[in-house]
Amino acid sequence: MNYESQAATALARIRFRDPQIEMSHGAGGKASRRLIEGLFVPLLYESSGQPLGDAAHLNLDGARVAITTDSFVVKPLRFPGGSIGGLAVNGTVNDLAVSGAKAEALVATFVLEAGLPTETLRDEIQAMAAAARKAGVRIVGGDTKVVEHGKADSMYISTTGIGTPIPGIAVDPSSVSPGDKILVSGPIGDHGITILLARNELDLEADLHSDTRTVLPFVEAIARAASSSIRWMRDPTRGGVATSLNELARDCGFGVVLDESAVPVRDEVRGACELLGLDPLHIANEGQFLTVVAASAAEEALEALRQIPGGEESRIIGEIQQEPAGAVLVTTPYGGTRVVDMLVGDPLPRIC
Amino acid sequence: MNYESQAATALARIRFRDPQIEMSHGAGGKASRRLIEGLFVPLLYESSGQPLGDAAHLNLDGARVAITTDSFVVKPLRFPGGSIGGLAVNGTVNDLAVSGAKAEALVATFVLEAGLPTETLRDEIQAMAAAARKAGVRIVGGDTKVVEHGKADSMYISTTGIGTPIPGIAVDPSSVSPGDKILVSGPIGDHGITILLARNELDLEADLHSDTRTVLPFVEAIARAASSSIRWMRDPTRGGVATSLNELARDCGFGVVLDESAVPVRDEVRGACELLGLDPLHIANEGQFLTVVAASAAEEALEALRQIPGGEESRIIGEIQQEPAGAVLVTTPYGGTRVVDMLVGDPLPRIC
Repeated sequence: MNYESQAATALARIRFRDPQIEMSHGAGGKASRRLIEGLFVPLLYESSGQPLGDAAHLNLDGARVAITTDSFVVKPLRFPGGSIGGLAVNGTVNDLAVSGAKAEALVATFVLEAGLPTETLRDEIQAMAAAARKAGVRIVGGDTKVVEHGKADSMYISTTGIGTPIPGIAVDPSSVSPGDKILVSGPIGDHGITILLARNELDLEADLHSDTRTVLPFVEAIARAASSSIRWMRDPTRGGVATSLNELARDCGFGVVLDESAVPVRDEVRGACELLGLDPLHIANEGQFLTVVAASAAEEALEALRQIPGGEESRIIGEIQQEPAGAVLVTTPYGGTRVVDMLVGDPLPRIC
Repeated sequence: MNYESQAATALARIRFRDPQIEMSHGAGGKASRRLIEGLFVPLLYESSGQPLGDAAHLNLDGARVAITTDSFVVKPLRFPGGSIGGLAVNGTVNDLAVSGAKAEALVATFVLEAGLPTETLRDEIQAMAAAARKAGVRIVGGDTKVVEHGKADSMYISTTGIGTPIPGIAVDPSSVSPGDKILVSGPIGDHGITILLARNELDLEADLHSDTRTVLPFVEAIARAASSSIRWMRDPTRGGVATSLNELARDCGFGVVLDESAVPVRDEVRGACELLGLDPLHIANEGQFLTVVAASAAEEALEALRQIPGGEESRIIGEIQQEPAGAVLVTTPYGGTRVVDMLVGDPLPRIC
């Protein structure tokens, strides 16, 4: 996520008072936000003259360069539909994509656990190579460290991507206004529930696989179809669609109103969520694209997303309204409404 | 290190056959090189159209951009003279510097262990901010993940730096030729031995501290004094001066001949090495600068390094000779010689 627009207020508002780090601080929800805005941003902001962001756009030697970084600690390493290596490439390509940039080059660091079978490492390097090929990005550098057996759960990977802005896209939450439409590129929650099932901690089985993929084709498609109408873009990973939209609501100051019956959710995901008392809107995705566009361009943007392979189930899932200011409201099929907050706690740790 | 010049031969020559990952694969010596050239380079090379390097220089939107990445798993987190946070900034700034680039922006990822005291994290963020200020680089983005208690030894940090080339510097091992002089910016081995002592596993005490610092001022100083005479630069971290010089010898095909009595080593480092059967040439540094310059510019370059605060003990420590081709030879004060190989094994794990 990008904090540029909120850093000043964040500095004034949030203080991180938790005495120690808990799993929830890594879950991408409220606790993560408090940690980042209450500790990282004020301390590094002072040094850097610029707030901490997840995808920063910089001027470098006269060129506009975008950079983003992410670490991956998913457990288990491999799961239906993907693995840590592919996730590490796609996640970084996607962070750049939704910031309006095309990834050009990646670098990666590996923290490996002593005793890791070479075959496992080879599989993940190959997964990275395949994902990079698919996303059209080169892997140009890396670093490897090894820690003792028992640390690092086989491996952690960090990837950093640099890229160049896609012409014509200016993403700015302050450009969002009532009437704008919210679109999503397909069913939500597949990744998080797939990881949960892959851990075999539950007596559940389902034919489900992670949605990990590059979302760049979606960004490029709506850029072609409706670039001047794009208001905001995000890949709703940790914390799910609800967390991303709460951030949007906070940043733009308007209400984000979702039509629950329009939000695509597979039966398997819905079933698992009901059983576990979770909301699909809080479950992580790794290949979904969430965007806000001007109402006049919504149908055109939707059509553009549906033309992309894998985007056939794209939907308009809601719109921006004046109220409830700064919050996300879901209207249910029965005419009711409920406010959906950011993710609180960490019901599904280490999903990426 | 930069593999561009050797990738083709590496592909033909090295195959990684070890069945599993061991600590030595992360030590920066022979085993690391086998892992990188035998597994990472061929697999990622194929996908990327370009070999894996530690500091790559790319064309991006018409600009020349350098990028490097490193992970840090040092144990303990804090040690005399520094800590993981400062190391993470300086290490990346230095990798760019010795590739001939000035770091402009950094991004960082944190893998935190659940239960980590907030105070410890705050200290490291502050250490990063301080090091960044000192090196003149901005921290512009980051990511945080949390893993269960017992994993990740408090924290691992990965940093990626992007920068722009320093005008007038062209570093290329193939430009190295017999007669060229080898210079170092100060006493070697301080960092590795400091870490060793900080672990309290030995009944040794010494007034020693890590040399962690930015080496950019050294690079800029010789660029001003003798830019066209610079043949090669390196910050000899993991694997020490001997490993860096063996890589140089292999890359340029000539002999690297060191005068042992000219190599600055503190008594405390020499003493600890003798006790442990280690060679100071294999001990890691985090703030030393190693360079090869044309003989005609050597004195001028030396003077330039000595003018930099902290560079007063810079020395000319050897020269390039025809023989022994591709190897490092040390001449001892008693008229003897010995060939010094790259670091083999991992006598001091996790020093950065």
